[in-house]
Amino acid sequence: MHMANSFDPRGASALDVADRELLARRTRVLGAPYRLFYERPVHAVRGNGVLLYDAAGLDYLDAYNNVPVVGHSNPQVRERVSAQLDVLNTHTRYLTDAVVDYAERLTGLFDIADAQAVFVCTGSEAVDLALRMARHVTGRRGVIATAHAYHGTTEAAAAISPSLGPNNPIPGEVELVAAPDLAREDPASAAAAFAARVTEAITALRARGHEPAALIVDSVMSSDGLQGTAARVLEPAAAVAGAAGALYIADEVQAGFGRTGAWWGYPHQGVRPDLVVLGKPMGNGIPIAGVIGRPDVFEVFGRDVRYFNTFGGNPVSIAAAGAVLDELENRRLLASASTVGDLLLRECTALAGTHGGVSAVRGSGLFLALEITDPATGAADAARAAAIVNHMRENRVLISASGVSANVLKVRPPLVFAESDAPRLLDALDAALAAPLAG
Amino acid sequence: MHMANSFDPRGASALDVADRELLARRTRVLGAPYRLFYERPVHAVRGNGVLLYDAAGLDYLDAYNNVPVVGHSNPQVRERVSAQLDVLNTHTRYLTDAVVDYAERLTGLFDIADAQAVFVCTGSEAVDLALRMARHVTGRRGVIATAHAYHGTTEAAAAISPSLGPNNPIPGEVELVAAPDLAREDPASAAAAFAARVTEAITALRARGHEPAALIVDSVMSSDGLQGTAARVLEPAAAVAGAAGALYIADEVQAGFGRTGAWWGYPHQGVRPDLVVLGKPMGNGIPIAGVIGRPDVFEVFGRDVRYFNTFGGNPVSIAAAGAVLDELENRRLLASASTVGDLLLRECTALAGTHGGVSAVRGSGLFLALEITDPATGAADAARAAAIVNHMRENRVLISASGVSANVLKVRPPLVFAESDAPRLLDALDAALAAPLAG
Repeated sequence: MHMANSFDPRGASALDVADRELLARRTRVLGAPYRLFYERPVHAVRGNGVLLYDAAGLDYLDAYNNVPVVGHSNPQVRERVSAQLDVLNTHTRYLTDAVVDYAERLTGLFDIADAQAVFVCTGSEAVDLALRMARHVTGRRGVIATAHAYHGTTEAAAAISPSLGPNNPIPGEVELVAAPDLAREDPASAAAAFAARVTEAITALRARGHEPAALIVDSVMSSDGLQGTAARVLEPAAAVAGAAGALYIADEVQAGFGRTGAWWGYPHQGVRPDLVVLGKPMGNGIPIAGVIGRPDVFEVFGRDVRYFNTFGGNPVSIAAAGAVLDELENRRLLASASTVGDLLLRECTALAGTHGGVSAVRGSGLFLALEITDPATGAADAARAAAIVNHMRENRVLISASGVSANVLKVRPPLVFAESDAPRLLDALDAALAAPLAG
Repeated sequence: MHMANSFDPRGASALDVADRELLARRTRVLGAPYRLFYERPVHAVRGNGVLLYDAAGLDYLDAYNNVPVVGHSNPQVRERVSAQLDVLNTHTRYLTDAVVDYAERLTGLFDIADAQAVFVCTGSEAVDLALRMARHVTGRRGVIATAHAYHGTTEAAAAISPSLGPNNPIPGEVELVAAPDLAREDPASAAAAFAARVTEAITALRARGHEPAALIVDSVMSSDGLQGTAARVLEPAAAVAGAAGALYIADEVQAGFGRTGAWWGYPHQGVRPDLVVLGKPMGNGIPIAGVIGRPDVFEVFGRDVRYFNTFGGNPVSIAAAGAVLDELENRRLLASASTVGDLLLRECTALAGTHGGVSAVRGSGLFLALEITDPATGAADAARAAAIVNHMRENRVLISASGVSANVLKVRPPLVFAESDAPRLLDALDAALAAPLAG
């Protein structure tokens, strides 16, 4: 199954001897499930802030990674994690202070009355648990997701992740609807049309014998071409789902913790979610994720089913997560994501005006998408998108490509990416857009 | 849904003021999914080796936790994790050395030719992925599991975990079979009877339109009453499953990394697994888990579906996992688990002879089970098992209870539990067995 911006093993001869040797060992022991990025994979040995360093000591500007949101090798995270490892690391069947302190602080960042939290280790686990909760409390199985969504890799999360490709089965209890297309519709029309598609999806589920348990949407719709958080664009669809008795699950694994310039993406979209799933940036790379939600939903699920995740909410992961909140707040990284993101959006839009083949530029905070199309035909141009990504990689600036047609450049740096980092990114993008497409 | 040895919130008045206050906050923000252990929960603030310390500074002998296998607050783990946090923590789409080094070392501990590894974050994720792999490569959906198994909490893992109780749905594509009962059958008869039940399960699945994709068994059958790793007891059943085209998945989340005195439980049972799932002790509490398996299975799944786990195989989790292997080897903890486990088995058997109501004592390495039954009727006595667990907790020795009838005492200390720790455990058990059952 092809993946955008994945390394083709036939290109191994372009690597130096040491990397070729490491790649051969890796292929032998990790095998086919694993994919690398870029025509020439990056051999990462060190990270610091927005920089990664390779084995030769060369630095790369990281304009792609959304996990190390407070920076690679963040000293606060290291210090808090190290200190906690010296003291205690255990599960939540003993009373421990840190998980309660953090849960209070985190739930206080949501507009859900008396919100409760369950901690897990990955976004996939969080999505999977939210689905279990929604299905248990509604007594239904049906789920509505967007047509190119990615929500995770457990069997249940993969079943609502059509972006995993044609060999990933989507069962009959799942109905897919096209996401709003904000490149081609204004937000109000897009909102109404999306709600109409959700209505049709409920009808389709019922025709197959399933009532809807949940509507789940990634609040930036990243795999659906990065639609971003346009005002109130999901409100009518959420209302339709709610009226049909389905829960609304806001997937904030991509959007959350300041990526868009706000804590979460969903409030701007006019949604009042029943459950919210969190992941990637939560612990700056120490595995932690969670589900936040309505206490009555937690109560029914918890009473009937209970839930235990051995590593979920352990004091070490919680220490990392606490350090992330501190850094986001103390360094005002939400405001920075907003202003630096706006700057990048303006400058990328200007570059699109001076180069052919960039048909749309959009973004929410520090998450930008540039659509690469054939200037003559307007068709998606995955080959040129890949060429741009790899040209920038050779200039040691890291971005990636994604989207339904693999033609959308994805720029999504750590939130410590500052205004002073912008020129290096923009120069590399400019040069890549100016370069002829190698045949 | 009741859980053995779970705290009853009506007992909160027995707690001191500070713990009552923490409990109230916890209940408000974490809610019903979370359960605590013991009539008086332990407020853990510090750990060291086999000891946990509460808020008053009192020490507890930990004879229960199977995650901190090389000891609470292990200095090697802390040092390696801290050092790595200073350098790099990223995902596997860049070339990195540590994940390859560790994968080679780990797969070298298995008797599977050219074994490959995929790293995830939790045992649940590992089980879920093994099921996805088995279903994809066989093109089938059916799974056979034991009648009281626990394999995890994702939707797919919960679907093969009947020990989660009556509100946890078991779908029609899953067939449950009673585990071997080694308290009542000799290993050879148990093995033959189990294989016959697996044959019946295949027939039952086919009657519902499902061919078997996998047979999955926890190699110590812990939730099925801790059957342990009796010689060749699973061999005939594995052969039956294989002949029907199903993969064999060895769940080593409980048994693995030295718990039974060997690296893994399955070889002694005469099984050659297609896939092995690993979890809990792998990183001594830093989230890491994995699937080890046949390269041809990985090849088909990887080629068609691929797999990516953002935090899976990150350098920090790998650093913890490497430190665990070093400690297990350098401190010869497998041999110790075997000799200390044998000692505990002898001494617990002796205690059972001097006290009424312990109808069976069995164990594999440092994993022991004591069945508590009514001496008059022979019936399972969950109330007395709970009383013993709580009596020991009041003497600051931590074990728990489980089993189909919640009457099996579970003794499962960190592997650094030494011969010199045994008297404190045995004295507390002796006192608890001698105590009258409070009415």
